[in-house]
Amino acid sequence: MSEKISVALIGASGYGGAELARLLVGHRFAELKIATASGERAGAKLSDLFPSLRGVCDIVCEELDLDRIAECDFAFIALGHGKAMEIAPQLLERGLKVCDFGGDFRLRDAKTYEHWYKTPHLAPQLLPDAVYGLPEWNREAIKTAKLVANPGCYPTSAILPLAPLLAANAIEPASIIVDSASGTSGAGRAAFSLGLHHAEVSEDFKAYKIGAHQHTPEIEQALGDACGQPITLTFTAHLLPIARGILTTSYATLRGQHTRESLHQIIAERYQNEPFVRVWPVGEVPQLKHVVGSNFCDIGVAVDARTNRVILVSAEDNLVKGAAGQALQNLNIMCGFDEREGLHSAALFP
Amino acid sequence: MSEKISVALIGASGYGGAELARLLVGHRFAELKIATASGERAGAKLSDLFPSLRGVCDIVCEELDLDRIAECDFAFIALGHGKAMEIAPQLLERGLKVCDFGGDFRLRDAKTYEHWYKTPHLAPQLLPDAVYGLPEWNREAIKTAKLVANPGCYPTSAILPLAPLLAANAIEPASIIVDSASGTSGAGRAAFSLGLHHAEVSEDFKAYKIGAHQHTPEIEQALGDACGQPITLTFTAHLLPIARGILTTSYATLRGQHTRESLHQIIAERYQNEPFVRVWPVGEVPQLKHVVGSNFCDIGVAVDARTNRVILVSAEDNLVKGAAGQALQNLNIMCGFDEREGLHSAALFP
Amino acid sequence: MSEKISVALIGASGYGGAELARLLVGHRFAELKIATASGERAGAKLSDLFPSLRGVCDIVCEELDLDRIAECDFAFIALGHGKAMEIAPQLLERGLKVCDFGGDFRLRDAKTYEHWYKTPHLAPQLLPDAVYGLPEWNREAIKTAKLVANPGCYPTSAILPLAPLLAANAIEPASIIVDSASGTSGAGRAAFSLGLHHAEVSEDFKAYKIGAHQHTPEIEQALGDACGQPITLTFTAHLLPIARGILTTSYATLRGQHTRESLHQIIAERYQNEPFVRVWPVGEVPQLKHVVGSNFCDIGVAVDARTNRVILVSAEDNLVKGAAGQALQNLNIMCGFDEREGLHSAALFP
Amino acid sequence: MSEKISVALIGASGYGGAELARLLVGHRFAELKIATASGERAGAKLSDLFPSLRGVCDIVCEELDLDRIAECDFAFIALGHGKAMEIAPQLLERGLKVCDFGGDFRLRDAKTYEHWYKTPHLAPQLLPDAVYGLPEWNREAIKTAKLVANPGCYPTSAILPLAPLLAANAIEPASIIVDSASGTSGAGRAAFSLGLHHAEVSEDFKAYKIGAHQHTPEIEQALGDACGQPITLTFTAHLLPIARGILTTSYATLRGQHTRESLHQIIAERYQNEPFVRVWPVGEVPQLKHVVGSNFCDIGVAVDARTNRVILVSAEDNLVKGAAGQALQNLNIMCGFDEREGLHSAALFP
Repeated sequence: MSEKISVALIGASGYGGAELARLLVGHRFAELKIATASGERAGAKLSDLFPSLRGVCDIVCEELDLDRIAECDFAFIALGHGKAMEIAPQLLERGLKVCDFGGDFRLRDAKTYEHWYKTPHLAPQLLPDAVYGLPEWNREAIKTAKLVANPGCYPTSAILPLAPLLAANAIEPASIIVDSASGTSGAGRAAFSLGLHHAEVSEDFKAYKIGAHQHTPEIEQALGDACGQPITLTFTAHLLPIARGILTTSYATLRGQHTRESLHQIIAERYQNEPFVRVWPVGEVPQLKHVVGSNFCDIGVAVDARTNRVILVSAEDNLVKGAAGQALQNLNIMCGFDEREGLHSAALFP
Repeated sequence: MSEKISVALIGASGYGGAELARLLVGHRFAELKIATASGERAGAKLSDLFPSLRGVCDIVCEELDLDRIAECDFAFIALGHGKAMEIAPQLLERGLKVCDFGGDFRLRDAKTYEHWYKTPHLAPQLLPDAVYGLPEWNREAIKTAKLVANPGCYPTSAILPLAPLLAANAIEPASIIVDSASGTSGAGRAAFSLGLHHAEVSEDFKAYKIGAHQHTPEIEQALGDACGQPITLTFTAHLLPIARGILTTSYATLRGQHTRESLHQIIAERYQNEPFVRVWPVGEVPQLKHVVGSNFCDIGVAVDARTNRVILVSAEDNLVKGAAGQALQNLNIMCGFDEREGLHSAALFP
Repeated sequence: MSEKISVALIGASGYGGAELARLLVGHRFAELKIATASGERAGAKLSDLFPSLRGVCDIVCEELDLDRIAECDFAFIALGHGKAMEIAPQLLERGLKVCDFGGDFRLRDAKTYEHWYKTPHLAPQLLPDAVYGLPEWNREAIKTAKLVANPGCYPTSAILPLAPLLAANAIEPASIIVDSASGTSGAGRAAFSLGLHHAEVSEDFKAYKIGAHQHTPEIEQALGDACGQPITLTFTAHLLPIARGILTTSYATLRGQHTRESLHQIIAERYQNEPFVRVWPVGEVPQLKHVVGSNFCDIGVAVDARTNRVILVSAEDNLVKGAAGQALQNLNIMCGFDEREGLHSAALFP
Repeated sequence: MSEKISVALIGASGYGGAELARLLVGHRFAELKIATASGERAGAKLSDLFPSLRGVCDIVCEELDLDRIAECDFAFIALGHGKAMEIAPQLLERGLKVCDFGGDFRLRDAKTYEHWYKTPHLAPQLLPDAVYGLPEWNREAIKTAKLVANPGCYPTSAILPLAPLLAANAIEPASIIVDSASGTSGAGRAAFSLGLHHAEVSEDFKAYKIGAHQHTPEIEQALGDACGQPITLTFTAHLLPIARGILTTSYATLRGQHTRESLHQIIAERYQNEPFVRVWPVGEVPQLKHVVGSNFCDIGVAVDARTNRVILVSAEDNLVKGAAGQALQNLNIMCGFDEREGLHSAALFP
């Protein structure tokens, strides 16, 4: 065991944190050494908070103590937005590599952050060196990063299908509409409200935060990076009556003489060596059941020739490729491990 | 009872037919006199096929016999596509008023029908006089119609929010994208397949028939009628892991200096006297739970000022306002009854 | 409208209260005059709290004011346990007829109440005259009652199938086991906790309050009344990942030479004139989808001859026959209306 | 790779078969060499039948060819009941070790099989040497078995909690009632009927095959083995509106002076060294979400002192501990591997 790197999980009591703990159990080269939780949860076993982990991961949660955490090699921050920017500077000073699950270090521009997150940025000095942790587009930078901002769940599902087409100049940048639907685990375990009462969600479907979702600028920034020009798009989130999974349907107007086959080829070639992006055969689109529980993001390509639009369907597990799985993928890259380590599981079907 | 009109329900063994039977129980001026079913279902009580109806509607299903049906005043045809055009001419000859649940008489152009439904039209001579039964837009024509084509479930949910804005010249016709999601009852009871096995749908979400859904030309025709010019749009259907309900999110680019408030006003004024369209207050959008079980179509209006697009959210019960409820609404109009008769129920919440 | 009786609904902001408001809309002889809610909900329209009621029941909720309520003929109390015993005496003094949704007046013995509900009884003087509002067993007493205790959701589903067999001396009283499962609306809208977060309930099933559920003595009391001797039984509640419905599977050892047919006959004859109890044909058992949305309790009878046990399956909508529907049935009886008034709807299927 | 044992999976196109393929991907000492499917599925990749396996297990399904399969060391038979007894003799003759998912070799008495399965037994000569593959009770026999009958999903969940109490003479054998509820994947992928249409199962719950479920004698046989006397019990199966998981609530009358604590101790001690049975702390019971996706069977113990009954709650994933996971556990035992190999995953929560 001595050769394993030691990992601190700051914020183990949320769904994303618990999912990371679950995944780390199967990792051969990293071990969970410290898990933190606040309030009455400190002192409890993680497996009392999440009995699914009984006998699997019985680590005792402790209050956040940066000096204790300094004994670790790597820290995941799985707290709500606004908390990571308070502690990340101190973790970096203590020499840890850091991967943050939240939004604090995803946007390069502190003003954009403040506009969408409605709070001042407390560590803007870290933004220039923070790396957006989408391995399929930033792998080289992640390799040497000290601070990685793990992408949001919706952005991962939107950027992966759209970026190759923008990079290839195959779609009109101003025409993009991203229509997404997520399971309820995306709302988190702590911040639950009447709108998440099972009785109100069961057999329901609704849109929320229309025009105001904080993941919008993150998608725009990453797509802008992919094509070298600013992107402004429409993003709408919906709430599905399921626990896990995000399905995103993206629309864009074609540029030039593209067909379903040529667009499919652009995306398929872009991701042909990627371990966690599966491009569906021409004529097929993915569905949530095929990815939930796995670290895959699956992509399907369709074209509506009558309106000259491409329709991209992408599916992921919001807690795996959309959160803890991608975070572990980032750890693997940052630490020089095989990128797939700990992430081999296929989806649970049905 | 003698003053009630007598109704024949041709095709009582599907979800739409059974829903109509359920609604008719509460109708004071119409009574179900004949219900047909084919094969081994003929001879069975409708309440054996649908035990929810036990003690409520125990009519015995019989084989289709047009001479028997000629004794009725009104016939609903709730068969699969392609069947109504075989029998509607004979029903009309026998003097019945007819409302068809299927697609056979919705499209004015037989060629368009044949393109999307992949079958020849057998009664094109009826198309000029068939009325598209969307009361909010065709009420006057429905009043005197002999043959009403009840709108499709998806089209009802898409046309109602978009038509007022097109009629007011407030959106770009070429920019419309309709993104819809339906519960599994929309697939029908007879045509069920592996893709509808509960284990494969539970906790799933997927898009289907992308660019090829037969409801596309129906939406286009009705919206074209509303604004006086041909409309071509993108429509994508998704399958929700719920039994009932359609939520539609529509996108369009604004024309002129419109705001959320001005668009809301256009729609709210258009429907202010409509008994079954509820326009949500500014800043709110509907969700499925608020309409399922009722004949309402609820509409919410949002604007993404950054991209100059309107986002319309509409919700309905696919079996009520999207099928049997609207059909009964059409009967009420065709027969001169209060349009709300038999349709007073609020949604079942939660 | 003047001939309608006027109804006050005390506690309109819970699921049971809102369901009653929904049902009252269709009642010809009673109208909702006052709806109360506490805190910030007072002053809001009921249809803002439950948008499903928009345009259907837009009454404004008000703070509880007993003098205002005294203007009404009838009051429903739909508050949490422990509140009704504070206000019922004053309502009765003011001459209203009262039907309470909660547990305060269901148990004749105040000591039993205090043992199971863990709180002192504040109005034991009312217990002798309070009538347990299960119409199928107490109709005559309900007719003249001033205070009716509306039965609990689980008890209704358990008493109806078991009582006829106990009354006929067909089963061993000491052998009864009641195994029930309820949807999440049974937990109420206010008492919302992590265990009801959609993400934690979806695709889950669990037992709760084993051996300690407060509905146990209520079932025992009613069954004891049916057979004239004290009953002690085992009752286990489970939580289903659905919004509405209770399915109860009851087990008992047979006495004498009974068969499935003879047991079925006992139950079927007992309820043959009951408008809201449907006994399934021999060999069939009900399922939830056949009752949800209706006021029916459906019962099926099976026998395991190998072990000499009867297995009874009963299904109801916990918010209708298990709460608001039965309360309205009680109002109808107490006020001399047709017992079915306002309760004609069949279940929503599928 | 040469040191891995080679595995044939006969019947890969069902849910159980696909689940085994999924689990085998993570097994270090066994590899899937042949997967069979019949009809048009032969020739297809397993990952075309189950796209969740794309890139994970792309083996091509082939028609069943016993000579081909003879090249393997081990065969799983995951066919419907009645098929294994046709081919198992030939596989054993060819020297393979065999584990059958179905019911053909679970009952020692061919007559009992024929009574419950309604078909003649074709290989009764194998019954004396077939071992019932419940490792927690038959580990030694499994180690040397050539033919293992993998337990049924319901029986696994019922036997594990009850057997220790019977073995300890702590409960009345004649008093046992087993009340179970399963997700819809238990019905299989092939035997798909209207009752499994998503629209009919969603928001539903029902009992089925009351008094006639073929798992009844299997539970009775195993419990009889545990206590050394014949057991006859009542077993009722229910269908949950979820894809995966079985929760079983078992009831029995206590013998002697037992308490919750003493019963808990009996069960906890019995399973203290078992890798896949987790006994919940005193006062807690498991729920499905804590086991689905894992090979655990979790057990909770409650006592209703008023009626002198124990109530046992057990939870498992019907496709893992109830099928493919337990089968793999049996392979591990039969081949001398660590029993946990390939089975380390915790449940997916939430």
